[in-house]
Amino acid sequence: MRVYLAGPEVFLADRDDIAEAKKAICAEYGMIGVFPTDPAPGALPANTDWMRIYLGNEAHIHGCNALIANLTPFRGASADPGTAYELGFMRALGRPVLGYSNAAGNFTTRSLSHLHGAVHRRASGAWEDSDGMEVEDFGLTDNLMLDGGIAAAGGILVVNPVAEAARWRDLTGFTRCVAHLAGITK
Amino acid sequence: MRVYLAGPEVFLADRDDIAEAKKAICAEYGMIGVFPTDPAPGALPANTDWMRIYLGNEAHIHGCNALIANLTPFRGASADPGTAYELGFMRALGRPVLGYSNAAGNFTTRSLSHLHGAVHRRASGAWEDSDGMEVEDFGLTDNLMLDGGIAAAGGILVVNPVAEAARWRDLTGFTRCVAHLAGITK
Repeated sequence: MRVYLAGPEVFLADRDDIAEAKKAICAEYGMIGVFPTDPAPGALPANTDWMRIYLGNEAHIHGCNALIANLTPFRGASADPGTAYELGFMRALGRPVLGYSNAAGNFTTRSLSHLHGAVHRRASGAWEDSDGMEVEDFGLTDNLMLDGGIAAAGGILVVNPVAEAARWRDLTGFTRCVAHLAGITK
Repeated sequence: MRVYLAGPEVFLADRDDIAEAKKAICAEYGMIGVFPTDPAPGALPANTDWMRIYLGNEAHIHGCNALIANLTPFRGASADPGTAYELGFMRALGRPVLGYSNAAGNFTTRSLSHLHGAVHRRASGAWEDSDGMEVEDFGLTDNLMLDGGIAAAGGILVVNPVAEAARWRDLTGFTRCVAHLAGITK
């Protein structure tokens, strides 16, 4: 069982340490964790760094049996869009997808907070931002496509708020995902 | 040829008008545009509104031959995460994906602007935010997974900056995507 470890930790200076910590947890459960920055499985037909990274991640996802996404909000109310892309990609392959967030609050409250009160109510009662865009209000963890994909796949989305300073390194929620995955794929 | 019309316009109060305008452009090129809020093709096994919406969108994507994503930045430096998810989903199905953005600037400059100067340089020269997360600096339109997915699929990503007030309704970039798709699938 190979598990793709999606998330914005690739942007941390100590990402290799996070990658090793996540892989160690996977190993405890008899799984092989695959981090986006791991060497790609084979030569890639790309002539730019970013395209090599893209194709490497695609190849990694194709080569994994499941995906665990770090959906902790990234510079705003939502998860990193690269992680959202990878989550959708793996869901389309029909393989298990799971997620976790280390932040408190649901998508609605975080969106309202992010908009700093620059919202008003439509006649329907729905919140709308200054661009006239509705604020999604289902009380979910993130945009319904992210929550829905995990639910449709029978996965779990663990919300485990931690202190701000530990937000990108706490692996409690991640560990719960790995344990859940180990349970359903035994 | 059925084309899934991914984007955050579903959050607009006049989304039905945008949907009709996009479908009319598709029709001019002999294509059928499918908007996320169109009635789902069949009964869906969901007992909540949001899960019905999710499963409906999944069914729509499976039933389309291509996808055009509105990647105009949504409440931050990046595209709507639901749209990013759908883009990844369709790319995983191996079908054509295209995108457009009505905003100026690349992902790097928009991210730095969004962070309001709360960044510093690593020894490597890379920008890092106050969380210690690197600012992706490839000069792309968005996170490399989004640009990469479109490039890997042989699609185009049209950047056509428009006035702020027209950002969610201008269909020039969208029309260029439809025309391109019509050309490669003739």
